[in-house]
Amino acid sequence: MPAHENVNIPSGNEEEADRRPLVLVHRLPRFALPFDMRTTFRLLDPIASATDESPQDFLSRHAPSIRALITVGPTPVNADLLDLLPSLRLVVGSSAGVDHINLTDCRRRGIAVTNAGSAYSEDVADYAVALLLDVFRRISAADRFVRTGSWPRKPEYPLGFKLGGKRVGIVGLGSIGSEVAKRLVAFGCRIAYNSRNKKPSAPYTYYANVCDLAVNSDVIVVCCALTKETHHIINKDVMTALGKGGVIINVGRGAVIDEKELVQYLTRGEIGGAGLDVFEKEPDVPKELFTLDNVVLSPHRAVLTPESFEAVREVITANLNAFFSNKPLLSPVQYE
Amino acid sequence: MPAHENVNIPSGNEEEADRRPLVLVHRLPRFALPFDMRTTFRLLDPIASATDESPQDFLSRHAPSIRALITVGPTPVNADLLDLLPSLRLVVGSSAGVDHINLTDCRRRGIAVTNAGSAYSEDVADYAVALLLDVFRRISAADRFVRTGSWPRKPEYPLGFKLGGKRVGIVGLGSIGSEVAKRLVAFGCRIAYNSRNKKPSAPYTYYANVCDLAVNSDVIVVCCALTKETHHIINKDVMTALGKGGVIINVGRGAVIDEKELVQYLTRGEIGGAGLDVFEKEPDVPKELFTLDNVVLSPHRAVLTPESFEAVREVITANLNAFFSNKPLLSPVQYE
Repeated sequence: MPAHENVNIPSGNEEEADRRPLVLVHRLPRFALPFDMRTTFRLLDPIASATDESPQDFLSRHAPSIRALITVGPTPVNADLLDLLPSLRLVVGSSAGVDHINLTDCRRRGIAVTNAGSAYSEDVADYAVALLLDVFRRISAADRFVRTGSWPRKPEYPLGFKLGGKRVGIVGLGSIGSEVAKRLVAFGCRIAYNSRNKKPSAPYTYYANVCDLAVNSDVIVVCCALTKETHHIINKDVMTALGKGGVIINVGRGAVIDEKELVQYLTRGEIGGAGLDVFEKEPDVPKELFTLDNVVLSPHRAVLTPESFEAVREVITANLNAFFSNKPLLSPVQYE
Repeated sequence: MPAHENVNIPSGNEEEADRRPLVLVHRLPRFALPFDMRTTFRLLDPIASATDESPQDFLSRHAPSIRALITVGPTPVNADLLDLLPSLRLVVGSSAGVDHINLTDCRRRGIAVTNAGSAYSEDVADYAVALLLDVFRRISAADRFVRTGSWPRKPEYPLGFKLGGKRVGIVGLGSIGSEVAKRLVAFGCRIAYNSRNKKPSAPYTYYANVCDLAVNSDVIVVCCALTKETHHIINKDVMTALGKGGVIINVGRGAVIDEKELVQYLTRGEIGGAGLDVFEKEPDVPKELFTLDNVVLSPHRAVLTPESFEAVREVITANLNAFFSNKPLLSPVQYE
């Protein structure tokens, strides 16, 4: 993610003259806001502001004026942080998933949480279809084959399969899942889904149980959020139900799948392939997968396009503007 | 392509008792029919029948009974071959393109030619979209990045772009091109096309000139057949018109693009990327492309799925059955 500087505006007279609302940028050093919001907000970024102060002291000093924070990418928002920020009333997430934000604690403290809404949905859906096409048609394997000069010296890698007519089971038919379905219908796939509740407006077959979905699918596409309920929802029973030819795509969160089992099923050839943008312990990827031609690996990039960055900048700005003018938030996370 | 044995049925009494029509399997040694047709036809395969006879002598000996041949993949059908087979009345191609068949000579000799019809169209369209998604979202680059253990040690490869909203220009809106358009509409792309004639039923913008199409496109997808008219139709003027950010996908034939120019434009960064399943001198691929992350390379595999093989087996069988029972051919190539 390209880094932009988040300027720390000094406190004092200058601060009082500045009418821009103050927003804390909460981030791990390797993540930065990929766009500039300084024309609209005063951004307080402990990492960008090089001082001898500890981060805790820095936050405590500014805490009385911090009513809103943006948490960048997967940077955790936990009780320790919230303890330091008693005036905080809004946590703005920059991702679609909010598994890195302690929602229980936020709710208890009366802190609202927003996510990226559907800003990323189309890009993530595109990526899911790209991974699926790649696994089915062996595109990355083809590219490796040509680049290593194997054509026509070595026997070719195994054939892929046609996408048309295949039964695709989508886990999580939210904004991303619906976009995946729309695309795959154009390839002649038959769509079914699993989600907490049947969606009356969705024209696809609903399975209340993921195992039942897997039995009736050639492909599982994981698009759901990571919650207590979805943690390891794709377990060995689901993989067995999916079967030898089955393919798993994950653009949700790594821990929705029992990764250890997935590696076993793939290396033993007990499922047909996988396309993975997310992993349980990013950036660690199980090395056993590196030699498999029926697996496509990606470093959590499904959301990363300039177009998505612009869309999420708009969502974040709209949420902050709504908050500071006491209007309804654009994409509040609903507490369960 | 997996090889199946094509049995050479010996001549003599056994041949006379056999009611199956005789069909010559014409193929280069590295290509074989990827399915079995022996229940329906007596297949005469000079390569599979190991004799001391020269291929010419073998063909001359069988020539009086050879009325139909299947040419496998890109195996050329030229005047030399036709000279050896005076009884030949049908050339059955197993590919969609027929640039390897001398149509002028066939017409002059009263030999009908059939191709694979639309048997491959969906698979080739899927492959075109897969290559496009890969170039736009850098899937193969992502996979390389993870497999080489670069995540998170190295700075990431450049961002890709969102597919939605992009203007895609399809060169050749036949059976394959139409399937490509249908898929890309679901991704929110805006479709235009170039072909010999405007298609009244197509709801897309028509450009009579490829340069005009390129000026108005972010992506060019080559889906047309290789003919005298389309040879090097994607030349440097078209690439200049497409511009720095433009992407070229080719699932047609290598020589539709001026490959030498394409390599120049890609290495100089004067177009944005390419996804290539076909090349001018297969299996040779320009080595300059091997180091580019914005290029996806594939060894002419767009048609290769078990589902396509089954579909083309049906088309070939239908054409041969029609021929031997004097009925209209299923997918005759129209002479210009």
